[in-house]
Amino acid sequence: MSAPTATEEELLTAEELGRGVRLACQTQALGDCEVDLAEGQEIVVRKDLSKEMLRPFEPAPRVKRIEGELEAPELDDQRSDMLRLSQAGALASCDCRALLSVLHKLPDTLREGDYRVAVTLMDDLLVEIEPLAEAQAPLGVAVDVGTTTVVAYLVDLCTGEFVAASSTQNPQTVHGADVISRIEYGRDTAGGLAALQAEIVGAINRLVGEALAEAGASIEQLYEMTVVGNTAMHHLLLGLDPQYIAQAPYIPVVSQALTLYARDVGIRMHEGGQVFTLPIVAGFVGADTVGVMTATDICNRGPTLAVDIGTNGEIVLWSGERLLCASTAAGPAFEGAKISQGMYASPGAICAADLVDGDLVVRTIGDEPAIGLCGSALFDVTAALLEPGALGINGRLAEDEEGLPAGIAKRMSGEDNGRKVLLANDDDGGAVYLTQRDIREIQLAKGAVRAGIEVLLEEAEISADDLEAVLLAGAFGNQVRPASAVRMGMLPALPPERIEGIGNAAGAGAVLALCSEAERRLACELATRAEHIELATSQSFQMKFMETMLFE
Amino acid sequence: MSAPTATEEELLTAEELGRGVRLACQTQALGDCEVDLAEGQEIVVRKDLSKEMLRPFEPAPRVKRIEGELEAPELDDQRSDMLRLSQAGALASCDCRALLSVLHKLPDTLREGDYRVAVTLMDDLLVEIEPLAEAQAPLGVAVDVGTTTVVAYLVDLCTGEFVAASSTQNPQTVHGADVISRIEYGRDTAGGLAALQAEIVGAINRLVGEALAEAGASIEQLYEMTVVGNTAMHHLLLGLDPQYIAQAPYIPVVSQALTLYARDVGIRMHEGGQVFTLPIVAGFVGADTVGVMTATDICNRGPTLAVDIGTNGEIVLWSGERLLCASTAAGPAFEGAKISQGMYASPGAICAADLVDGDLVVRTIGDEPAIGLCGSALFDVTAALLEPGALGINGRLAEDEEGLPAGIAKRMSGEDNGRKVLLANDDDGGAVYLTQRDIREIQLAKGAVRAGIEVLLEEAEISADDLEAVLLAGAFGNQVRPASAVRMGMLPALPPERIEGIGNAAGAGAVLALCSEAERRLACELATRAEHIELATSQSFQMKFMETMLFE
Repeated sequence: MSAPTATEEELLTAEELGRGVRLACQTQALGDCEVDLAEGQEIVVRKDLSKEMLRPFEPAPRVKRIEGELEAPELDDQRSDMLRLSQAGALASCDCRALLSVLHKLPDTLREGDYRVAVTLMDDLLVEIEPLAEAQAPLGVAVDVGTTTVVAYLVDLCTGEFVAASSTQNPQTVHGADVISRIEYGRDTAGGLAALQAEIVGAINRLVGEALAEAGASIEQLYEMTVVGNTAMHHLLLGLDPQYIAQAPYIPVVSQALTLYARDVGIRMHEGGQVFTLPIVAGFVGADTVGVMTATDICNRGPTLAVDIGTNGEIVLWSGERLLCASTAAGPAFEGAKISQGMYASPGAICAADLVDGDLVVRTIGDEPAIGLCGSALFDVTAALLEPGALGINGRLAEDEEGLPAGIAKRMSGEDNGRKVLLANDDDGGAVYLTQRDIREIQLAKGAVRAGIEVLLEEAEISADDLEAVLLAGAFGNQVRPASAVRMGMLPALPPERIEGIGNAAGAGAVLALCSEAERRLACELATRAEHIELATSQSFQMKFMETMLFE
Repeated sequence: MSAPTATEEELLTAEELGRGVRLACQTQALGDCEVDLAEGQEIVVRKDLSKEMLRPFEPAPRVKRIEGELEAPELDDQRSDMLRLSQAGALASCDCRALLSVLHKLPDTLREGDYRVAVTLMDDLLVEIEPLAEAQAPLGVAVDVGTTTVVAYLVDLCTGEFVAASSTQNPQTVHGADVISRIEYGRDTAGGLAALQAEIVGAINRLVGEALAEAGASIEQLYEMTVVGNTAMHHLLLGLDPQYIAQAPYIPVVSQALTLYARDVGIRMHEGGQVFTLPIVAGFVGADTVGVMTATDICNRGPTLAVDIGTNGEIVLWSGERLLCASTAAGPAFEGAKISQGMYASPGAICAADLVDGDLVVRTIGDEPAIGLCGSALFDVTAALLEPGALGINGRLAEDEEGLPAGIAKRMSGEDNGRKVLLANDDDGGAVYLTQRDIREIQLAKGAVRAGIEVLLEEAEISADDLEAVLLAGAFGNQVRPASAVRMGMLPALPPERIEGIGNAAGAGAVLALCSEAERRLACELATRAEHIELATSQSFQMKFMETMLFE
């Protein structure tokens, strides 16, 4: 095997390289060798979104099922099949049109079903007709396209009940963990944009196929998909060129909500299936953030801050009068990338830590032997190291053990930038460390989020104390301990009871948009109402960032 | 070569069989032989529809072109490309959406065109964007799908000017000259329906390609197509099963106007191209008849009768209060089929005849040696034979020459049902005859049309004298001499000045619908207003038919 390239060193963690994980596109076989294909990493994703997790709403999906019986034609009633159908019962009021494929099957379906039929409508478009006795429930799916993880929630559109859910890693991850590296791949590689689109479309098709299989349903039952995702993921899914997002003045191709034919996007659904993408606000405040605004109905609350900590960190502030939003390059640090032994939240990842009797006590996902650490642990470990002074407010690990509790002291080793803290040791001699460099990444990430919050508070002319609630959305929003997030300074110092994890609120927004046209309109209104504050060029942000990087 | 089969005897004329024309699907090669592939028969079609032939109307096509310049984005104006575009100038009022393909090219088109662009809209859908300097005129095409002939009129949608026209034979003709044999082919042959659709779609694609080539335009400029045609042609073009049209109670699949994506129909146009089919009234009163109603704006006239003599004979009566319509099995006799030496209106066809000094004087298309006779000649010859008594009102040719002018007398030969009239003789010994059996076909055809007219007049409670105008539409509506049509009894006895040939009014209706949304609405209103009188089961029709078959 050739030695790891610079690209591999950048894209793979030290732990992965240690395990022999390699990128097929970068590695040369120098002799006979055995290659194990990587299984999809098992990711613990909060896909157990249940109806109870959604705020109350009135189900009123765009897809409607109508059943009934028609009068058979006679010589003194020679109306065409379609006219007869469109003048019957509930259809008479909607001036409906039909897909050509419905017209193709219309004559036989009417006659074989003895004129008792079930029709499926999207707005005033007839997309399916079935003999009443054989009619299948119409389904919809809400998809959250994360930079790292893709989740699908399958819903019965008649009852509004969840039917199944599935999740997978975003296959574009091989081109880089963050959106910028993917945008660059799409821009700089021939066929790159098409490849990125094919990857995410393929992943969604597989994901939806799994959910349908779990529900024992067929693809022909799937009429509508709603999608949230950040602007880059949104554009890559639709094959839109995101390159102008990545350079000033950061312009997306389209920000409005789109209603598209699934076949045009490459998504496998019912022949008339449509894809609704929630609107986006700006190049780095995407449909996922609009999903969060929608799921929290943020403008119907008191002053509220919502922070979505995914691969990027988007911040939304409802001041009671203005709806402000911004994005920060929190980067994928909180998802484990850029952290030397960081990993996704999968079994064996340290996910929490406490300071107990002067020592660190860590917990891993699945109580497996520790093989790395994931985002939520970063908050706890940082907070726990700050407490006894093992970590200074300037972000430097204590240079000697003097004055530190014995438990912590024993964990520290190395010098200067090689200084590190042992988090866990296993019997085989493997060990998980948090390094000085990791702490610098944490400082940058949390400092960016906090500076963004401060800029929005300043713009809205309110103070942190005025906030009734701080909502933590995102894959590990529920995992982060409010006290740790405050202690390490990512959030303003507020009583922990005002800080609430709300799970995958972006996904919840997609589900609401799937189940109710009113929620879809709400999403569009919120996106229009939102004022985007560009932090990339903000003097105020730069000034605050220098302060908020400190652990105080 | 195997001998002609029964099918060939039915589908080919005696003249064609005499020339050695055979059907490839019916003929077996019994030894070495040479096969000449039939060139497309050169058909003289009135494709020279000019703007002057249309009644005055206000051009307001559905496809609109808007040109303008946008403000370039800046850091304090981060609107997405699409939002920027949709809020600019004339677009701001229409809340426009865009095809995904437009979004794909949007960022580069804006930047390469220095934010000066031309956009093309269909309703509120953006279907094209071009740098202003390279913008091409948007075109539309109106297509008249006749049972026998297909005609396309290409129109510049900005100026409303005709750009080109083309016509061809309907390739489905190989499955039979009339609609019933095609419906039966579709029903009884595996894959028949798909084959019939592929044939007509292919013909339209070739036809439109020819018109575009003539205009030096590309397929990407073609945004909209409007279509007229009888119900069976309409259904076959769209792949809709027409079998229930052919059996009582004669039910079409769909009668409403349809707006379809060209790609769903298989028509080659701009990627976002759409096909608008005019509405139909009944199984045998199709979009072609609605085109006639529209082109004549029939409900804004005094009492008017319109007769469209194509392969079927459709009759429309506007009484001043009610709009009635019916179809008769005039059959393809008037187009030359079922007439022993009948042929389409192509060079060498006898197209007119006069009685001069007691003898027939015939005229052929292109003044070529006569090789057969076409529809318009049937009217003249019949009228000319009736005058001196060579043809009785009961439809029998005079059994002897007694009392007949010498010229006519010399032309008659044969006995009983073999009796025939020589129309033309050529130097090589070839001859064109009208036979007793041909006259029976003429009787059936003209009798059916006339009986239909009488039924509608009776239903409307007006008399023929009340008619301000009788309009003859159809491929040879302009060729038929009013006096002959009255003399042989197809039309009521009205002064010839009230009878007017109006050419391809169905096609004119398609052109109007292409150029104006108001005309499209008019077509829909007329189709809804039209009351269909079913003649197939009408007692009154049967009674009248027995009388109207007579030549009186």
